[in-house]
Amino acid sequence: MNVEFINPFLNALLNVVGMMGHTELTAESPRIKKNDVSMGDVSGLIGMVGPQTKGSLSITFEKSLALRIMQRMLGEKLTEIDAEVTDMVGEITNMVTGGAKQELSKKGYEFDMATPIVVSGKNHTIEHKHKGHVIIIPFTSDSGKAFIEICFD
Amino acid sequence: MNVEFINPFLNALLNVVGMMGHTELTAESPRIKKNDVSMGDVSGLIGMVGPQTKGSLSITFEKSLALRIMQRMLGEKLTEIDAEVTDMVGEITNMVTGGAKQELSKKGYEFDMATPIVVSGKNHTIEHKHKGHVIIIPFTSDSGKAFIEICFD
Repeated sequence: MNVEFINPFLNALLNVVGMMGHTELTAESPRIKKNDVSMGDVSGLIGMVGPQTKGSLSITFEKSLALRIMQRMLGEKLTEIDAEVTDMVGEITNMVTGGAKQELSKKGYEFDMATPIVVSGKNHTIEHKHKGHVIIIPFTSDSGKAFIEICFD
Repeated sequence: MNVEFINPFLNALLNVVGMMGHTELTAESPRIKKNDVSMGDVSGLIGMVGPQTKGSLSITFEKSLALRIMQRMLGEKLTEIDAEVTDMVGEITNMVTGGAKQELSKKGYEFDMATPIVVSGKNHTIEHKHKGHVIIIPFTSDSGKAFIEICFD
């Protein structure tokens, strides 16, 4: 998969979490997922379908990070992942994919987005079932980790 | 959402699990998801995008049922959800959505499928983030429960 495909997603997550969630994420280098496991507590998932391609994206957050972003957005201290938190994760997933879609469209790559799905559950893992490579981007912050995983045909 | 949309998914799951997994599922009536929670241990998720519609599908299995289907397919007794099991759940998700897509295409409803994602984690829950209704179909069997959830714009 072309690296041109990856950076728009990476940058969109930094922007969205920075602006909406007042939280600075630091991205590690994108790499092909081999032994990495992106384990987390709440994930937003979305399918992508274009004329020449299809794929999927996931954004996984550790609970501590998801709750901290909510707190910084709402000024309210939450202790559990509730419907407000999963709404926020669904919204972040939509915004990141929508932002990347716009960037990629300028470069001539077109795809449509399905509707997002949010998964909650302690230490769940995500596998994109796909014949090609899956790219994983780990992110660190003052409040925990996040991961983007992307695959495209 | 039209009931015409739902039955092809329901029937495809009964067929796929019956034929591949030699396991009889019994479907409860499809209903609008309100307080239902489809909690399970391994789920296949897929996005769907058509010219007039978009949506998402999830199929969630309890661990006992997923392992039993694997055992009946392979004659091998597994105790944990490993990569073979998640591959099987991804494949079931693809086959169910592909089967329903064929049926729906005959009725004039067209959509393309994204690539499937499989989530593993004890007692995770799924939320389709979507403005319309989510339809849930619970299934029972001799080895545990499964759930389909579908939403379409």
